Amino acid sequence: MQMELTANELAAIVGGTIQGNGEVKVNNFAKIEEGTEGCLTFLANPKYTQHIYTTNASAVLVKSDFVPEQEIKATLIKVQDPYATLALLMKMVNDSISRPQGIEQPSFVSEGVDVSECQYIGAFAYIGKGVKLGKGVSIYPHSYIGDNVVIGDNTTIYAGVRIYHNCVIGKRCVIHAGAVIGADGFGFAPTENGYEKIPQMGNVVLEDDTEIGANTTIDRATMGSTRIGQGSKLDNLIQVGHNVEVGRNNVFAAQTGIAGSTSIGDGNRVGGQCGFAGHIQIGDNNEFGAQSGIPNNVGSGNRLIGYPAIDARSFAKNLVYIKKLESLFKNHK
Amino acid sequence: MQMELTANELAAIVGGTIQGNGEVKVNNFAKIEEGTEGCLTFLANPKYTQHIYTTNASAVLVKSDFVPEQEIKATLIKVQDPYATLALLMKMVNDSISRPQGIEQPSFVSEGVDVSECQYIGAFAYIGKGVKLGKGVSIYPHSYIGDNVVIGDNTTIYAGVRIYHNCVIGKRCVIHAGAVIGADGFGFAPTENGYEKIPQMGNVVLEDDTEIGANTTIDRATMGSTRIGQGSKLDNLIQVGHNVEVGRNNVFAAQTGIAGSTSIGDGNRVGGQCGFAGHIQIGDNNEFGAQSGIPNNVGSGNRLIGYPAIDARSFAKNLVYIKKLESLFKNHK
Amino acid sequence: MQMELTANELAAIVGGTIQGNGEVKVNNFAKIEEGTEGCLTFLANPKYTQHIYTTNASAVLVKSDFVPEQEIKATLIKVQDPYATLALLMKMVNDSISRPQGIEQPSFVSEGVDVSECQYIGAFAYIGKGVKLGKGVSIYPHSYIGDNVVIGDNTTIYAGVRIYHNCVIGKRCVIHAGAVIGADGFGFAPTENGYEKIPQMGNVVLEDDTEIGANTTIDRATMGSTRIGQGSKLDNLIQVGHNVEVGRNNVFAAQTGIAGSTSIGDGNRVGGQCGFAGHIQIGDNNEFGAQSGIPNNVGSGNRLIGYPAIDARSFAKNLVYIKKLESLFKNHK
Repeated sequence: MQMELTANELAAIVGGTIQGNGEVKVNNFAKIEEGTEGCLTFLANPKYTQHIYTTNASAVLVKSDFVPEQEIKATLIKVQDPYATLALLMKMVNDSISRPQGIEQPSFVSEGVDVSECQYIGAFAYIGKGVKLGKGVSIYPHSYIGDNVVIGDNTTIYAGVRIYHNCVIGKRCVIHAGAVIGADGFGFAPTENGYEKIPQMGNVVLEDDTEIGANTTIDRATMGSTRIGQGSKLDNLIQVGHNVEVGRNNVFAAQTGIAGSTSIGDGNRVGGQCGFAGHIQIGDNNEFGAQSGIPNNVGSGNRLIGYPAIDARSFAKNLVYIKKLESLFKNHK
Repeated sequence: MQMELTANELAAIVGGTIQGNGEVKVNNFAKIEEGTEGCLTFLANPKYTQHIYTTNASAVLVKSDFVPEQEIKATLIKVQDPYATLALLMKMVNDSISRPQGIEQPSFVSEGVDVSECQYIGAFAYIGKGVKLGKGVSIYPHSYIGDNVVIGDNTTIYAGVRIYHNCVIGKRCVIHAGAVIGADGFGFAPTENGYEKIPQMGNVVLEDDTEIGANTTIDRATMGSTRIGQGSKLDNLIQVGHNVEVGRNNVFAAQTGIAGSTSIGDGNRVGGQCGFAGHIQIGDNNEFGAQSGIPNNVGSGNRLIGYPAIDARSFAKNLVYIKKLESLFKNHK
Repeated sequence: MQMELTANELAAIVGGTIQGNGEVKVNNFAKIEEGTEGCLTFLANPKYTQHIYTTNASAVLVKSDFVPEQEIKATLIKVQDPYATLALLMKMVNDSISRPQGIEQPSFVSEGVDVSECQYIGAFAYIGKGVKLGKGVSIYPHSYIGDNVVIGDNTTIYAGVRIYHNCVIGKRCVIHAGAVIGADGFGFAPTENGYEKIPQMGNVVLEDDTEIGANTTIDRATMGSTRIGQGSKLDNLIQVGHNVEVGRNNVFAAQTGIAGSTSIGDGNRVGGQCGFAGHIQIGDNNEFGAQSGIPNNVGSGNRLIGYPAIDARSFAKNLVYIKKLESLFKNHK
């Protein structure tokens, strides 16, 4: 934590109330089942409730309405949302950690590009012609910023990211190592002599506050833009096809794929390894179970799972019926 | 488009016929639903037909037999294959865009490697010992070309590609950022003390005109070669196991995986997130739906989907029957 | 093979017995169906038995109890485990191949880092502050070793690997090109104004003898460590979420994903494209078929497949019953 606070002090910072010894000191974070003396931990997922009675952590963030069923050694700090509160505290500590700064050598900055307001340009970074970099931008080693790319203020590009020419990255974005932004969309026209490549002449636009996971790939549009909307978060190893349009505040878990020209609204929560067909429309605030396949348009507010994805309750029922098939066929003999 | 042409001039270039004002000028490409004045667009997928009546694009490439059902503001250019024609026009424009050239510094070229006929060696590119580079080869920044790799004429290696030693890349290939060609196949022999690594001593051969997507991985053979046949196109984040042999003119959509020693013929069309088991044989001209799992040999000319993949019509029927199970079981109570 | 041995000499090395001409010489390895004169090949998978009667290889490693049903031209070398024996011979040859060594320039080594006992630091490698490198470590070009990373003796980091700060890599590990170790876990708290990032303050620990495939991503823990146990092998394009704990001697085939906080025991064999839900416990020595989805806890010693994964025999039965549904419904009309 790089600082030491008492439970009372923490409670004051986060607007919580203390149950137990408010003078206990914490200087580190830990998971509840791994907590040791001096650690602050939290209880958000009820699956982990059992651990609160045995944890060796010194203090635990719990929900305001949490009522222990046994004695608890640790000091409780009661808050409305333990996970969000933990996040806030971690953010405070995290923000106090010093970040790399300055321009390391050797790096490659094309003539005429202004890097004077950047926070950090790592060694072996490559900045193409006509690139525009905002204030406080960090570009880690081995990242490639193609010609005419625009990167907004306070965005962080981790090591080995590749951003092809003409793409536009917003403010406060985070792009993790190995992500590829703006490679050619997968477009080929069949001909008598095999496939003819369709030039991919558009770009990718990542709006403000997006986060892109490690080794995720977002293809440039054939024409126009592939777009990831403000505040959307993509995990690792995700594929986004050309001309996809993703709205605001969606979360996509790892290894999901979105085929070309599909549009996705706002506030969707997508499990890992899902696949969206191309040229479909998805509404807002849906929840897709992991490994779902989504072949057709979807409205808003649904909870879907399966291959192809159906209503989650129907999916569960079908599994029960399939399990019963053996007895059914045996009875019919 | 970096040039301006009238619809009449375009029609002359592509052998099309004009319906509407042939003197309208276009200077950019756009999707039909995003077209603005001065844009050329196209209509190939019937799902988008509605947009032709409202598009603000100045001209639209349509099929020769297209008959409007309402008035259309845009000029129509009738051609046999609108998408292929668009591709041709985009290619013409694309070819006129200037490409990077020369040898940027710092780059690392091993002694004795001749780069004099290369189009471009980007900064921070690494060229190993004994590498042979053809005419017009472009190697973007941060790419790693291992010892003794051979790269054919006019091939483009985008930023951050890794090609391990001894691999062979054909002519006119395109390899996108982050692709890894020739990493060790996944071969381990179980022993009493855990797994013993099997050295992977073969290589990868990409034949002419192949295109490999961003962050795709193609493992080197244990012995002999893993091979991608002439004209085959692999999208992003695809896995190709050791000793796989892929024939000519196949297209594989993103996130598909092919396990070791499987052979795939020619002209197959494979949807996203498919998985092919190891040690199987796939024939020619099959179509695999997205997310299919293919555990066994497949002949030629099939349309398959599912997990495991079955005939697409049977798959659709089974979905209907599964949906009916609830009523079936209720009737039997 | 970079050496030439007779079948008799090979048999002496591996403790095998000869059937046929022991004086035949071999100088290369090949698959049985591709073997040419001078090649040593092997027969382990019965699917390939047919090829032993036609192979042009000079010698074949076979099981001690192999009894030919026809005449065989090649010399047989009978051993207990042909694949393991082949691996041993390939390892011998492989070990005799010279590896890159020394420190290439330009590379970036932070002040105070001791690289004197490293085998190889490639050009454009980046070594952060406070990094500790063991004896015989090889770091290929374009790899990024973040601040305070520890790497054990004789570990090989191939080109373009990214290891974020504070991660710990064991001895004799192999990390293939493009792998990303220690990027932020996917942790966000929903708020009224969109998602708030949870800082990911833990690290990744790869224990000794682990191998990590190309472009695989292993996220750092929110708190504590994401851990891959001793001797476990991960193929390409695998996703490991934050706070996952993987035990010893597991093998994971390509494109599998493990969601956050899941723990997996020892000795499991996991097919390609599997998905493990978050916050679940998996025991030891299970086998998971390719593309399985594992939503819940699993004990030990199971053979599972499906979405969701069930016992492999039940899965096979269900497929049969589903196939019969058509006749069932037709009979009921």
